[in-house]
Amino acid sequence: MTSTASQPAPSPSPAAQLAYRFGDGVADGDASMRELLGGKGAGLHEMSRLGVPVPPGFTIPTRVCNDFHAADGAYPPGFKAQIRAGLQWVEERVGTRFGDAENPLLLSVRSGARVSMPGMMDTVLNLGLNDVTAEGLARKSGDPRFAYDSYRRFVAMYSDVVLGVKRDGDLAEDPFEALLEAAKVRQGVGSDTELSAETLRTLVGDYKRVVREALGREFPDDPWEQLWNAIGAVFDSWNTDRAMIYRDLYGYPHDWGTACNVQSMVFGNLGDDCATGVCFTRDPKSGEPGIFGEYLVNAQGEDVVAGVRTPLPIAEKAEGQAAAVSMERAQPETYASLLEACTRLEQHFRDMQDIEFTVQQGRLWILQTRTGKRTGPAMVRVATDLVGEGMIEREEALRRIDPEQISELLHPVFAAGAAREIIATGLAASPGAAVGKVVFSAEEASEWVERGERVILVRVETSPEDIQGMLAAEGILTARGGMTSHAAVVARGWGKCCISGCGALRIDYGAGQFQVEVPGGGVVTVSRGDTISIDGTRGEVMVGVVPLEEPGLPDSLQQIMGWADEARRLKVRTNADTPADAAKAREFGAEGIGLCRTEHMFFGEDRILAVREMILAQDESARREALDKILPIQREDFAGIFRAMDGYPVTIRLLDPPLHEFLPHEPAEQQRVADDLGLSLADVQQRVEALAEFNPMLGHRGVRLAITYPEIYEVQARAILEAACAVVREGVVALPEIMVPLVATASELATTRERLVRVAEAVFAEQGRRLDYTIGTMIELPRACVTSDAIAKHADFFSFGTNDLTQTTFGLSRDDAGRFLPVYVAGHLLERDPFVELDRAGVGALIKIGIEGGRRTRPAIKIGICGEHGGNPASVAFCHEMGMDYVSCSPYRVLIARLAGAQAALAGSPAVSGNSGG
Amino acid sequence: MTSTASQPAPSPSPAAQLAYRFGDGVADGDASMRELLGGKGAGLHEMSRLGVPVPPGFTIPTRVCNDFHAADGAYPPGFKAQIRAGLQWVEERVGTRFGDAENPLLLSVRSGARVSMPGMMDTVLNLGLNDVTAEGLARKSGDPRFAYDSYRRFVAMYSDVVLGVKRDGDLAEDPFEALLEAAKVRQGVGSDTELSAETLRTLVGDYKRVVREALGREFPDDPWEQLWNAIGAVFDSWNTDRAMIYRDLYGYPHDWGTACNVQSMVFGNLGDDCATGVCFTRDPKSGEPGIFGEYLVNAQGEDVVAGVRTPLPIAEKAEGQAAAVSMERAQPETYASLLEACTRLEQHFRDMQDIEFTVQQGRLWILQTRTGKRTGPAMVRVATDLVGEGMIEREEALRRIDPEQISELLHPVFAAGAAREIIATGLAASPGAAVGKVVFSAEEASEWVERGERVILVRVETSPEDIQGMLAAEGILTARGGMTSHAAVVARGWGKCCISGCGALRIDYGAGQFQVEVPGGGVVTVSRGDTISIDGTRGEVMVGVVPLEEPGLPDSLQQIMGWADEARRLKVRTNADTPADAAKAREFGAEGIGLCRTEHMFFGEDRILAVREMILAQDESARREALDKILPIQREDFAGIFRAMDGYPVTIRLLDPPLHEFLPHEPAEQQRVADDLGLSLADVQQRVEALAEFNPMLGHRGVRLAITYPEIYEVQARAILEAACAVVREGVVALPEIMVPLVATASELATTRERLVRVAEAVFAEQGRRLDYTIGTMIELPRACVTSDAIAKHADFFSFGTNDLTQTTFGLSRDDAGRFLPVYVAGHLLERDPFVELDRAGVGALIKIGIEGGRRTRPAIKIGICGEHGGNPASVAFCHEMGMDYVSCSPYRVLIARLAGAQAALAGSPAVSGNSGG
Repeated sequence: MTSTASQPAPSPSPAAQLAYRFGDGVADGDASMRELLGGKGAGLHEMSRLGVPVPPGFTIPTRVCNDFHAADGAYPPGFKAQIRAGLQWVEERVGTRFGDAENPLLLSVRSGARVSMPGMMDTVLNLGLNDVTAEGLARKSGDPRFAYDSYRRFVAMYSDVVLGVKRDGDLAEDPFEALLEAAKVRQGVGSDTELSAETLRTLVGDYKRVVREALGREFPDDPWEQLWNAIGAVFDSWNTDRAMIYRDLYGYPHDWGTACNVQSMVFGNLGDDCATGVCFTRDPKSGEPGIFGEYLVNAQGEDVVAGVRTPLPIAEKAEGQAAAVSMERAQPETYASLLEACTRLEQHFRDMQDIEFTVQQGRLWILQTRTGKRTGPAMVRVATDLVGEGMIEREEALRRIDPEQISELLHPVFAAGAAREIIATGLAASPGAAVGKVVFSAEEASEWVERGERVILVRVETSPEDIQGMLAAEGILTARGGMTSHAAVVARGWGKCCISGCGALRIDYGAGQFQVEVPGGGVVTVSRGDTISIDGTRGEVMVGVVPLEEPGLPDSLQQIMGWADEARRLKVRTNADTPADAAKAREFGAEGIGLCRTEHMFFGEDRILAVREMILAQDESARREALDKILPIQREDFAGIFRAMDGYPVTIRLLDPPLHEFLPHEPAEQQRVADDLGLSLADVQQRVEALAEFNPMLGHRGVRLAITYPEIYEVQARAILEAACAVVREGVVALPEIMVPLVATASELATTRERLVRVAEAVFAEQGRRLDYTIGTMIELPRACVTSDAIAKHADFFSFGTNDLTQTTFGLSRDDAGRFLPVYVAGHLLERDPFVELDRAGVGALIKIGIEGGRRTRPAIKIGICGEHGGNPASVAFCHEMGMDYVSCSPYRVLIARLAGAQAALAGSPAVSGNSGG
Repeated sequence: MTSTASQPAPSPSPAAQLAYRFGDGVADGDASMRELLGGKGAGLHEMSRLGVPVPPGFTIPTRVCNDFHAADGAYPPGFKAQIRAGLQWVEERVGTRFGDAENPLLLSVRSGARVSMPGMMDTVLNLGLNDVTAEGLARKSGDPRFAYDSYRRFVAMYSDVVLGVKRDGDLAEDPFEALLEAAKVRQGVGSDTELSAETLRTLVGDYKRVVREALGREFPDDPWEQLWNAIGAVFDSWNTDRAMIYRDLYGYPHDWGTACNVQSMVFGNLGDDCATGVCFTRDPKSGEPGIFGEYLVNAQGEDVVAGVRTPLPIAEKAEGQAAAVSMERAQPETYASLLEACTRLEQHFRDMQDIEFTVQQGRLWILQTRTGKRTGPAMVRVATDLVGEGMIEREEALRRIDPEQISELLHPVFAAGAAREIIATGLAASPGAAVGKVVFSAEEASEWVERGERVILVRVETSPEDIQGMLAAEGILTARGGMTSHAAVVARGWGKCCISGCGALRIDYGAGQFQVEVPGGGVVTVSRGDTISIDGTRGEVMVGVVPLEEPGLPDSLQQIMGWADEARRLKVRTNADTPADAAKAREFGAEGIGLCRTEHMFFGEDRILAVREMILAQDESARREALDKILPIQREDFAGIFRAMDGYPVTIRLLDPPLHEFLPHEPAEQQRVADDLGLSLADVQQRVEALAEFNPMLGHRGVRLAITYPEIYEVQARAILEAACAVVREGVVALPEIMVPLVATASELATTRERLVRVAEAVFAEQGRRLDYTIGTMIELPRACVTSDAIAKHADFFSFGTNDLTQTTFGLSRDDAGRFLPVYVAGHLLERDPFVELDRAGVGALIKIGIEGGRRTRPAIKIGICGEHGGNPASVAFCHEMGMDYVSCSPYRVLIARLAGAQAALAGSPAVSGNSGG
């Protein structure tokens, strides 16, 4: 363990080299040799070269795989001699001998291609066992049960992988499992570990008989025969159907071939000077420095995972484990070795490592190291700490942040390890966790919350009418709708937990309950007032209370965000409809509002009646009269938003949804509106009926409303500009950007712009002051993209509305796609939900056309995105690549977008090392 | 009238020429001088040069207009002298003098730009009248009423156009009209013509007082002052707001300027040797050779139009007019002159002319000639006759056909001149005429027709459930839906008369009636069983019976179609779902089926139950069981179509609409289905509910059905290929092309194609024979267009589905667009309904991208169009320009598409004169 990293092993001429040796501080290869040694092999060589104690072995390079197939399964000349030499080298390092009756060397034989192909390739463990060596192992370990259980497992694995006894069979028919089960029944025991060594030895015999009967020949007892066949099987596994399909899917060439790693097995269960464990080089939950992990004395790796015995802490200081005896205290020398290995590995890989180790007779062996998975808080803490320790540069720290995981620092989460009785799973529509009593309508939600309850609103789907109840609820659960359904979008905007499209729910509003068939069988009924817990981060629905944890915003995050802002070119704005949302977004660093939807304002209790009066008006003058009632209220809304965004631009979208969305659909509510407005119920119902649409998404909405009812936008523009003039008097810097939605033709925007400019001139004349404002448009229809050059003549800015653009480009209603989109994603017809991550090939191509056309006409046109994609990291990267000026996303995704923008900038520019913060 | 055409008038140096003289067989200019003399001026010069007796005058060229504006309204040097000289030349020709008290020359002063700008520019008639010349005119004509009425009109017109007294005023406030109305009231008469000369003279005084009061100066009595000002007003009219906006709209430069035509007025009402009339050089209704027209002795032009006196026939032979005394008999010399002018003009313009003439004191003057409007039959007859007469070549004949007008030769029409009590107007959705009793449901339609009635089906809108009733009805009238609504598309496919989107109808199904507010006021109620007549060519709804005429297919049309086929490159297929439609389309010359929709077959009575069973099935095996019942029926459908299309390709689109379209929505029908299938009503209702979609257009349909339920397309493919094998045994040549709808991703088509090929291989194995077939896709989503290169890997052909592509490109539901699209078209926000004529700028741009991508991957890919646009001439031209292989349209539009294809080919190639049929 003290050999230096740079010392190579003596090696034959590289041209003919067929076994590249590694282990115990030396290696023929290194990390750069992935093509030849495969990913896993290169890693083993590199680790060994670092001086980390890796169980010795050798790698058969990828070209042998190709030669093997080219020669119809024959090994190249000199192959066996080199392998024998390699094995001898291993024997010398480990001090055991392959096939030896007293002190047998056992081997693992694993495939390892240039890239990881999870589950595609084959592995054989414990190779070298036969009746003689098994007995030797039993003697040497003093644990016959272990020896024969290893033997039994080896025979089953080898028979499967190398001999193909149960190829393509399924577990129910696995003959080896069947024999094992029968033995357990015979012995009257519940688990494998209770079987005696004798029973296991008998099972080995039974297994071998199965092989004889299936293949008509004996199971090979000769370790060398085992080895040659296992290597061949690894090479053959490169060309299985599933491996070929996998490579086709990901576009990997078939001629890469796989390497084969032959490595000595080490055992942590050969006595009390043996152990096995897992450790992280830092705390994966908090990111705190210091190794963190668990181990078991005299145990195998799987014992740690199985949870039969309680593992012990590795480091002394680990909280919550202090009562137990730590490795640091109990085995200080081993601990020191482990600490050294951890340090070397972390310093080499420059990231927190997740390390598997085994101690065999006092000697530490590192079996595997990989980048450690961690929580969001740990991710941020580790990244900043590593910069502080001079291990990585700021840019590298930024690159390593998974922006999505930042959410974990913002939303309440369920306590780690808390029991969850999951009854259904839906789409993880808006992250976070919520606990509350079930209610089935927005009204109930409001009422129950008013009397002090916490509620979860459960609906088939939600609509804008439900907005007050949604706001009141702790979380929202819907049976229908996708990641961008009304519930999902609204909830994410609020940072409120939401699960959408939970198709398993059978909701019966009448009975006030929902039912779910649970995976194990049986039906769970949840009634109004029952408590449930929902996990919007995972999409899980649980009955009862799952305890919550409060999040905190650590300094390390502030530090990361500062670096991100230095690296970032793309501006990040927010989608916010209220002063409260705007203020929240400013806290998260939003640089303006990219989308302020005016329709949400229309649903306020103080104005919905006037809105309905406007819609039910029979002519323009009645419509103007109703609009005049809305004007002062909207003006106050806008003034509040301008104040919250003092000095930052505010893009306000004029009314977008079809008018029928504002009308009541329940007879009782219709009657109330009729009474309030002095109309008959029939009048109201007729108007509701008349406004109904076959495809509201493609209907009378957006700028189309302004073409037929110009006064609506005129009044909105007046409210915006009057508000701006008012706050300017208070000393606020108001930068209004008026946005016209759903433009399909340049003529629509030209006409609307003309009217808006007229209103602006009138307002400025009345107010005795002018102010800067711009007029632009959403680009959210394919036609707008392909005619963007003409549209740009009338637009100061473009904002790509990628929700609707995705819908129209795909011809896909996001509200209906829940029926089949999951089938598409599951069947790889789509790699991902295009409403979550922007579809580059289709929607992206149209955006590119749209930007090119716009800039051709107006080179300085400001371009942004305000769809849900503005908060999706991969989509933000696309926006950066397209040269957009900004993205806009919901307040709770502003941090994510800032990080993603920085990462995109770093990805697009060559890495600059001068930015080191070390 | 015998002066030769080639003799120019003596003229001053052209460089300085400011008045180009024309008239009575001589002219300074000719037809080639549009830029200088304007369109109208150049025409007058050309006519004069042809030896046609045009009232003499002169044209002030366009450059004077520009000079005039450049000099702030001053005329260029020498201008007045040249005008005076020109006028003197006119006086010599006409024999009257400008401002003369006894024999006054009156003038018209009109603008005339390079292109016609209808309604944009100004005109003054009867210029030169004042108290003295009016009295002279009264004496000379012996008709003081005429003289003072002319004077009155002149003062009003001049005051308006030149003096600007009522600029921008509207008629309700027209002071001259008000005075006229007051005079009529005072005199107790109903019409202008009943006012006495004295009253008219008084009115002139009143009019002049209005001018004095409005402007503070006198109306100019000096004819020369009138003339200078009128010319200035014509030039000024070039720069009015409306003219500028018009030019901006059409992209005409503002620096063209307008010419000004000053022409002598001639009068047909100065005695019995005077007359006025209108004549066509051929019969505009039938196209028969020989001049055809009407005239009135001692009358003004407007008298012919007003219908107060009954005009007389011009030619003796004209049928239906024989009882009256013709000009040919009564005034043989004038007739001879007119005949000569007609012949010259027709031979010169090489087309049937519509000519206005006046005979003043025995002398014929041609006032105007233009290409004569004609009926469809006349259009075809004239075109072929002109070729026969050697006047034009075949290509020219083809170019002159308006393909849309061909419809008139195919559909029943209302008898010309029949009285029509129009109560409402809707969209002219499917041409033709129909008379029948009103029914309000498809069931009623079927029942009433079964008992021998003819019915018009009146619905708010139609759905596929109504198909049987629609087929039974004579015609269809809907209150909602556009040119491509379900009713419109289905009706056009059948050649059945249909009016859609007739928004004025207030249909009350419960009461069994509809009401309409008629234009004049009042409400008309039409009840079930009342007879109405509908004109699908004009979109007019009439109460009662309007008599019908049967159409015939003349030989001349066959001749034209033969020439069209020689010129055409684009193939023309048809959209047909039944053997009957297919056979009909073959009669019209369809070269295959471009779109056979399988869903219409699903509604047949013998299969709809099985279809519903399939949809209501709980799992794949139940679904397959139901599909197995549909298979043999579909096979027979396809066999029939293959037989009808023997030797021609048949493109069959696999199931496209969302499944809920096939389920019943009425409880009674739901109960029947439940009973038939042994389900509960609740089961059926729950499934109907579960399948409901927010935006069905963007929902679970097309290939998405095949991704979730592969067995549907598998069974359809089996039916197609089994049918093809069966008919091949009969000696029929079957060329199936299997089309997958609504593809958005290449993966959808790849997966589906693989499954279809597997089915084909199975069928061929079972049948013991192979046959050629292809698999392709609809391109009907923007995403398919921009990713067509990837999609083409799996497609033998592309068929652009421009209905859905227009919907998704615009984000516009064709079923809902009726609310606002008319406002767009009326307001010039869209030049035309994009569902009628393909939108080149938007949808066209995507099609171009789609074609380029497809051909990049697969250069020989077959490309066509199968939306409604395939039968629209302008859209067919686009398809030709894009290099498509074929268009496909409804059977009744096949002739139109064949002609449009020929015209597109001719437009794209330089005119070749060797093709003359003369």
